[in-house]
Amino acid sequence: MGNPIEIDYRLAMATAAGVGGLTDAELDAMLLRAAAATKTLVERCDRGELGFFRLPDDSAIVTEVQAMAASVPTGLTDALVLGVGGSSLGARAAYDALGNGRDGSLTLHFPDNADPHRLAGLLATLDPRSTLVVLVSKSGGTLETAAQTLISLDWLERALGVVTRDHVVAITDPVAGSLRALATSRGWKTLPIPSNVGGRFSVLSAAGLFPLALAGIDVARLALGARDAMRACESLDARTNPAAVFAALHVAHLERKRHSVHVFMPYSDALRTVGSWFVQLWAESLGKRFDRSGERVERGPTPVVAVGSTDQHAQVQLFIEGPRDKLVCLLRVDEPTSTDLVIPPSDGPFAFLSGRSMHEVVVAQLEGTALALACDDRPSVTLRIAKLDALSLGAIFFMLEVATAIAGDLLDVDAFDQPGVEQGKRITLGMLGRSNAETDAARARLAQADDRHRLPVR
Amino acid sequence: MGNPIEIDYRLAMATAAGVGGLTDAELDAMLLRAAAATKTLVERCDRGELGFFRLPDDSAIVTEVQAMAASVPTGLTDALVLGVGGSSLGARAAYDALGNGRDGSLTLHFPDNADPHRLAGLLATLDPRSTLVVLVSKSGGTLETAAQTLISLDWLERALGVVTRDHVVAITDPVAGSLRALATSRGWKTLPIPSNVGGRFSVLSAAGLFPLALAGIDVARLALGARDAMRACESLDARTNPAAVFAALHVAHLERKRHSVHVFMPYSDALRTVGSWFVQLWAESLGKRFDRSGERVERGPTPVVAVGSTDQHAQVQLFIEGPRDKLVCLLRVDEPTSTDLVIPPSDGPFAFLSGRSMHEVVVAQLEGTALALACDDRPSVTLRIAKLDALSLGAIFFMLEVATAIAGDLLDVDAFDQPGVEQGKRITLGMLGRSNAETDAARARLAQADDRHRLPVR
Repeated sequence: MGNPIEIDYRLAMATAAGVGGLTDAELDAMLLRAAAATKTLVERCDRGELGFFRLPDDSAIVTEVQAMAASVPTGLTDALVLGVGGSSLGARAAYDALGNGRDGSLTLHFPDNADPHRLAGLLATLDPRSTLVVLVSKSGGTLETAAQTLISLDWLERALGVVTRDHVVAITDPVAGSLRALATSRGWKTLPIPSNVGGRFSVLSAAGLFPLALAGIDVARLALGARDAMRACESLDARTNPAAVFAALHVAHLERKRHSVHVFMPYSDALRTVGSWFVQLWAESLGKRFDRSGERVERGPTPVVAVGSTDQHAQVQLFIEGPRDKLVCLLRVDEPTSTDLVIPPSDGPFAFLSGRSMHEVVVAQLEGTALALACDDRPSVTLRIAKLDALSLGAIFFMLEVATAIAGDLLDVDAFDQPGVEQGKRITLGMLGRSNAETDAARARLAQADDRHRLPVR
Repeated sequence: MGNPIEIDYRLAMATAAGVGGLTDAELDAMLLRAAAATKTLVERCDRGELGFFRLPDDSAIVTEVQAMAASVPTGLTDALVLGVGGSSLGARAAYDALGNGRDGSLTLHFPDNADPHRLAGLLATLDPRSTLVVLVSKSGGTLETAAQTLISLDWLERALGVVTRDHVVAITDPVAGSLRALATSRGWKTLPIPSNVGGRFSVLSAAGLFPLALAGIDVARLALGARDAMRACESLDARTNPAAVFAALHVAHLERKRHSVHVFMPYSDALRTVGSWFVQLWAESLGKRFDRSGERVERGPTPVVAVGSTDQHAQVQLFIEGPRDKLVCLLRVDEPTSTDLVIPPSDGPFAFLSGRSMHEVVVAQLEGTALALACDDRPSVTLRIAKLDALSLGAIFFMLEVATAIAGDLLDVDAFDQPGVEQGKRITLGMLGRSNAETDAARARLAQADDRHRLPVR
């Protein structure tokens, strides 16, 4: 079976997008670099430095996840999945895309915010006796997840007397971190996120697959789609490697055309959260202060999510007429993701729609937008899948992860760290009582501020 | 009662944000222009050229909307609100922020996409006998809304035999357009969107207020909050005018500091859709090819929505370490939007959280992020409200609408048109059977493309 994702980049090239497109020479030069980046990446993965690339080859993950899901006592109806960022978005994206898989599966809830709004609503309506709490944190050091965990365990305890193994599964580093220590001391069931797999590259580990297995989604097919993509994405012939092509297109548009805003626009409601997943992956992996030799570069494209056709009435005006700083990636699904709807006959201005289906309309809108952009020399790429299912979604996840890793290499940044979020976190912890030098420095900065710069004026 | 929104822009100024901030001279120069823009705007509004500014003064709107909502037959439980872009997002944002207002109110559904996914799901689960279909289109010419209208009317007809006045309300231009003509010929109930109010500035007209009244939301308080903001936003002393300050800050950061990415980041799950509403308002109003004298300028900031604390694990890495091209606007709510949750005692690394509430955590995260940005000379603005309710939300809507209009003037573009979406629409219509020159030109453009620029290669 081949890679199920087609990349149509005709409208990203100068032949069709004029001065907004790349020449073959520009793309070829970047593809050469992308081939080298792919080689380095595969070597690092095969040395075990990076784990995400070989996850689809590890059939033990699917087996273990399915066995753990099967061991959940009957009578549980809901799963409260506590994680944030990469630890939550992958599973949530797949759940929103594919829905509950079969009768008797669990309904998933993802209250991935320190804001108590959603978690409070869930704790007020869910029955603790029929709820499984799934804790997802690679390090165990995530503030939101820790706080939500303490609150949710307390909620279980109040109802059940004691929190048994039946009601908690912890997904975390195999040995390190405070969540691992807690799970061991309490005797909870656990699943691993391999030490060499970072949170935002973890959707194909137990972090993503276990909640999805609970929801009855065919995680074996998801892994199979990822494996199909893996074969394509390890090709050192960059022109036939979808991840290398995706990365090379985006980095070449950034470097040669100053297209620094990378719009990701599925024409599908079901793929909206996949857009959010891509945004965190692209932004957090590529937005970096230092390059790999430690020089200050302050680099990184700005990913923006839009959803077609809705955002044709919101952001597309800017994409079509505003600054020429954007590359738009459209995501097309050939088959409708649900029952299609046929437009009945009518008089008047919309008579011509009679007998057309809504899905035909949305596909025509995608094409109309891409062509309107091209007619004004504005570039776009179309990712296309025949059908939205576990197989194609697994391939999308994997291809975009590899593309992100390759783009990191092309931009000469470390795609696998996130040092920038640490400082804000330390300042926050200082404000919550863990005094430290950075919080003091931040307070000193605020003390320089001028109180006239507030309205109402104080 | 005063304007309930505080704007804290201390961290957007050079005193606290160093080279990333504005000097007083830079801001003062822009505030002078903003005062002139405010004067022009108020004059245009008072001449009747622009209607949105005086909507909060027109108490007949609230009265009419409430009467129409009260006339909905008992027994109706759901409202299917068919509109897209500005015709849908305002009501949806307020509904997501404030929820259903009282027992017996209707549940709202907003399937605002040509993608049939959500509408098909709704038509399969809703009972037509207990559903009100609300059609919202200023012009009646919106493709998605027209198609969804035809399908939904057919769905009602199949179940009810005939679509009675009890099941449809059309909200559209008072006289013009195909939806007005249809409603008149069928004898449906209607509400007006005044001719001088554009779709994306319509949340405080019947387009936004009627669905919200159905949901039991206190639309009189929403209008009252908007009226409070109106008094503040007509001040020609720009320094005390919140809309002028918001617009001047954003345009000055764009022009003086090349901060072209405008991040809007509520630290509140309930305000996520308000972020989407702002994005469509800011992008579609300010993203323009021509300035007001017809010169090609291709102008417009890129609005990006983020939600705290979730996006601290997604986009904040980029905001803190990436290119210095962003102004981040944080939205702070002092009181929790729902029941707060208190973190129970624990051993280990999170013991210091004991007794703290989740809301305290999210507020500390907002402050930590703003200060981490400032410590690296990256600017932010904080919009702050004491409490999320109809009053403050009405003020937020109105203030941001006026700020958008003023920003349009400062950028010298027409904030009230959207010519760029028309071409894509004509190409789309051509593909659906209405042949025209633009579709032919687009096809010619595609014919120039090179088929090698597809993967798999064909």
